[in-house]
Amino acid sequence: MSKHTVFAFVGGDRRQVYVMLGLARDGFEVRVAGLNAEELSGAENITVCGDPQRAISGADCIVLPVPYSSVLSAQNINTPLYDKEIRIGELFAAGQELDGKLILAGRADERLLAMARLGGARVVDYMEREELAVLNAIPTAEGAVKIAIEELPITLHGSSCLVTGFGRVGKVLCAALKGLGARVTAAVRKKSDLAYIKAFGYDGADITRPIPEPEKFDVIFNTVPKLIIDEIFLSALRPDCLIIDLASKPGGVDFEAARRMGRSVIWALSLPGKTSPLTAGEIIRDTIKNIIDEQAR
Amino acid sequence: MSKHTVFAFVGGDRRQVYVMLGLARDGFEVRVAGLNAEELSGAENITVCGDPQRAISGADCIVLPVPYSSVLSAQNINTPLYDKEIRIGELFAAGQELDGKLILAGRADERLLAMARLGGARVVDYMEREELAVLNAIPTAEGAVKIAIEELPITLHGSSCLVTGFGRVGKVLCAALKGLGARVTAAVRKKSDLAYIKAFGYDGADITRPIPEPEKFDVIFNTVPKLIIDEIFLSALRPDCLIIDLASKPGGVDFEAARRMGRSVIWALSLPGKTSPLTAGEIIRDTIKNIIDEQAR
Amino acid sequence: MSKHTVFAFVGGDRRQVYVMLGLARDGFEVRVAGLNAEELSGAENITVCGDPQRAISGADCIVLPVPYSSVLSAQNINTPLYDKEIRIGELFAAGQELDGKLILAGRADERLLAMARLGGARVVDYMEREELAVLNAIPTAEGAVKIAIEELPITLHGSSCLVTGFGRVGKVLCAALKGLGARVTAAVRKKSDLAYIKAFGYDGADITRPIPEPEKFDVIFNTVPKLIIDEIFLSALRPDCLIIDLASKPGGVDFEAARRMGRSVIWALSLPGKTSPLTAGEIIRDTIKNIIDEQAR
Amino acid sequence: MSKHTVFAFVGGDRRQVYVMLGLARDGFEVRVAGLNAEELSGAENITVCGDPQRAISGADCIVLPVPYSSVLSAQNINTPLYDKEIRIGELFAAGQELDGKLILAGRADERLLAMARLGGARVVDYMEREELAVLNAIPTAEGAVKIAIEELPITLHGSSCLVTGFGRVGKVLCAALKGLGARVTAAVRKKSDLAYIKAFGYDGADITRPIPEPEKFDVIFNTVPKLIIDEIFLSALRPDCLIIDLASKPGGVDFEAARRMGRSVIWALSLPGKTSPLTAGEIIRDTIKNIIDEQAR
Repeated sequence: MSKHTVFAFVGGDRRQVYVMLGLARDGFEVRVAGLNAEELSGAENITVCGDPQRAISGADCIVLPVPYSSVLSAQNINTPLYDKEIRIGELFAAGQELDGKLILAGRADERLLAMARLGGARVVDYMEREELAVLNAIPTAEGAVKIAIEELPITLHGSSCLVTGFGRVGKVLCAALKGLGARVTAAVRKKSDLAYIKAFGYDGADITRPIPEPEKFDVIFNTVPKLIIDEIFLSALRPDCLIIDLASKPGGVDFEAARRMGRSVIWALSLPGKTSPLTAGEIIRDTIKNIIDEQAR
Repeated sequence: MSKHTVFAFVGGDRRQVYVMLGLARDGFEVRVAGLNAEELSGAENITVCGDPQRAISGADCIVLPVPYSSVLSAQNINTPLYDKEIRIGELFAAGQELDGKLILAGRADERLLAMARLGGARVVDYMEREELAVLNAIPTAEGAVKIAIEELPITLHGSSCLVTGFGRVGKVLCAALKGLGARVTAAVRKKSDLAYIKAFGYDGADITRPIPEPEKFDVIFNTVPKLIIDEIFLSALRPDCLIIDLASKPGGVDFEAARRMGRSVIWALSLPGKTSPLTAGEIIRDTIKNIIDEQAR
Repeated sequence: MSKHTVFAFVGGDRRQVYVMLGLARDGFEVRVAGLNAEELSGAENITVCGDPQRAISGADCIVLPVPYSSVLSAQNINTPLYDKEIRIGELFAAGQELDGKLILAGRADERLLAMARLGGARVVDYMEREELAVLNAIPTAEGAVKIAIEELPITLHGSSCLVTGFGRVGKVLCAALKGLGARVTAAVRKKSDLAYIKAFGYDGADITRPIPEPEKFDVIFNTVPKLIIDEIFLSALRPDCLIIDLASKPGGVDFEAARRMGRSVIWALSLPGKTSPLTAGEIIRDTIKNIIDEQAR
Repeated sequence: MSKHTVFAFVGGDRRQVYVMLGLARDGFEVRVAGLNAEELSGAENITVCGDPQRAISGADCIVLPVPYSSVLSAQNINTPLYDKEIRIGELFAAGQELDGKLILAGRADERLLAMARLGGARVVDYMEREELAVLNAIPTAEGAVKIAIEELPITLHGSSCLVTGFGRVGKVLCAALKGLGARVTAAVRKKSDLAYIKAFGYDGADITRPIPEPEKFDVIFNTVPKLIIDEIFLSALRPDCLIIDLASKPGGVDFEAARRMGRSVIWALSLPGKTSPLTAGEIIRDTIKNIIDEQAR
């Protein structure tokens, strides 16, 4: 990867600050808009610009945050560490020199793609990269472990944990739980996943059938973004069983039924940025470097 | 162990409630004083008595909490879940039928031993039992893990952890950290401990000499109740290195120097009761059963 | 799965004997030809037939061994535990009642498929099932571990191991080596595999570039059936580095160059049947039950 | 430790050759008698002497093998890699310059101590050092694992293993077996050991009472040099349960009863030197360096 790439960051949270610091430390020139200057005070190779246009001009690669637009106002860039607002339209206004530039954004949508295309820029959504998703499973699992230790009156050590799903988060979470001495059951659909589950020393269960001995579980971690923990499932559990839902929307739990039955459910989203912002930032930085590398080939 | 043993509990926190519930579920008759009745509402085999004398009379074994006396007033039994007070002297007043009874207490001191002796009762401090101390290392380690995940901006996975001491907590904590994917160094004095450390797959360091590469550590867990992390040690660490002191008083860190140098130190005491009261209660219950067993032989 | 399925086994080694015993113990009726009677003496639910036709007639499912044909004579069924020979053609001769039957065979080829089709039978190759391949990785990894302990003058504990490939065998082998305290590097092509390798606590290497520090490795396990360990790779290794090739034909090592350079290479094939015939048999049995299950739906 | 120490080795097996090579590579001057010159051909810093007197004269430290005397003839030094014999008496004959020297020997006995005292030399038995005993548990455990994989028709993964005793070998062996995916039960006497066993994630059993579910075990590893696996214990096991006795004489199995009952018992002694001579040599070398270090203080 060429160290000549110039990055322009617009907006972002603490995690994004770590991305900037990391790239700057790696020798890249970094310009930033949409961030109060004190967040980066004294950092080498980083220029904080009051005006997004100044940051973008001359940059090869524009990095937008996760998600790129504000949750409060969809018209604005997501700038939680900035006193002012930056309109998305402003970034893509006529006259902006976007032609040939690479825009890296988290959770890019149709609107972003369309605006970029008009300006002649390409968009890559770094949150969709497989290696980022796998690595993000580490802070997600660790955040889930923290929640469970916090909420349960017992130790995870010796407890019975059910993990539904054996994708990226499921695989890494099962390993973390076992590493802490928990008894881990993973419930999945595929026979070959059951084989891996056995190979790695967990108990396996067929998620398409009623889970055997549901009353033994102290905590359930759902990783599947589909209704798995429905009313029937809930009523088979011990009333004090804790449910931690790690699945993105719409989640995997019938929250309404759980509330009615008085069950404890925690829907824990975006754990990497919350629990381990520095690690989450390093993962994004490494992924950005991989993307730049591949574009250069 | 005879199921005929009758237990009288006086005072105690949430953990002690779990001890009572556990013994009652195991079939023992349990009487309680110094606890609001609603804490135990509906539990079988448990009688809540307004008067400690009624609880004690007819019991074979009196169980006092950890510590047995209140931290607010040394004259009182430790009764955090009770609206009123119970004077220690009252329990041992003349006329109490203590003769031949067994008193189980946490952190028994000379005063308690003397009062019990006068009444003809024996005292066993369950917190001094080796098996309890070993098992308590599990919730202690897990509580320490939770604090580290919470406080560090990085994941424990992939982080460099230094554990000073390789006693009960050190051994169990090293295993938990490694189980979460941390790189673990244990610093000890004895060559044979270094051999065990190697055998279990950690890096070892000689605690009597300067630790090699001190700047690589992201977090230090001290388990030795002796000044280990002194000013020289502190100044060799990275400024953002987190220090978690798990050692009982006087701790193992020069807290004053750390404050002066702006280092983050967390002195985490009594983690089992705080992080995992149910597990802590089960450990006490099992230890009490072991003690009763041995007394019966 | 219906317990009414009647199985006819023709030929097979020790592993296949365990398959028969397992199915019989599970309550299935099993008929056998091509096996000396004393191998199964006294087993319930099993009938040993002198004549393959008698075994097949009335059976729902015909089970052939792995591989189904003899390595000595391709015209014969593979019958290492039988004093006589059974011609493959004989099984499929006109007049055999094959119509509608299910033939389960290991390493089925075009010839077998053609013969079965003529007789109106379906063929499923159980060795091609994903769950069998994953589960077979367990005895393969354990066999590889045994060879390494046997051949190396050092312990695996503390040794540096390189595993090339991170498919089924690679994943399970890395876990076993780490479980014994080895330092494990896995060399792969995909970035997402590198992410998993990091998540599981191994070091990763890009197999498309020269491996960093090749002289540190004490043993290399290849799992990729493609020329990976070529002359250049070999000459970068320490002369006493042991190479264990677990890849099926054509293997992954330039054996000729290794011989010339005096390097130790062990090409270990078919480890499950050799190292752990009972486990290998149970895996085949479970897979056969899965196949029957699915056919019944 | 001073690099000026001059070592004289007399006799020894392959393991001892690795000790010499290791010390020589670390910069020490090494003289050797009782070893054919070709075993060390070309090694730097090593002088092979035909005459033990020449080797000893001028040395600070005399290193004898494990055990120091030949098993064939107690009058001779143990010289399995030497064509001739060396009489022990000859080493300690009048006129030998032993005064003030340090003799390091494996399994030193009264005779050796007496002869050394006469000559004015001190004796340290390096096999009695705690750190060596702990480190030797690693190759012992690995050798035991190899035997079990070799002898059992099943994989250790998923098997039920019983380890009797939780001393050095027991602790390390339990970790290795669990690392390979076995279900591990450790049977011990002390309650505090049971607590550690639970903390490390094994099942515990009280060795003073009948082991629960004895028929579930596939293999038993004994580490206690006392009769543990007696006739009653043996008759409770499954007939195909493999017994591996790792305890030094008199072992822990009633071998006669086992033979009578047709049980498979393997008495595996001195595994480090057999399975991993290089590692065993490194352990002895490191221990020798620790001893020299301490003597120098």
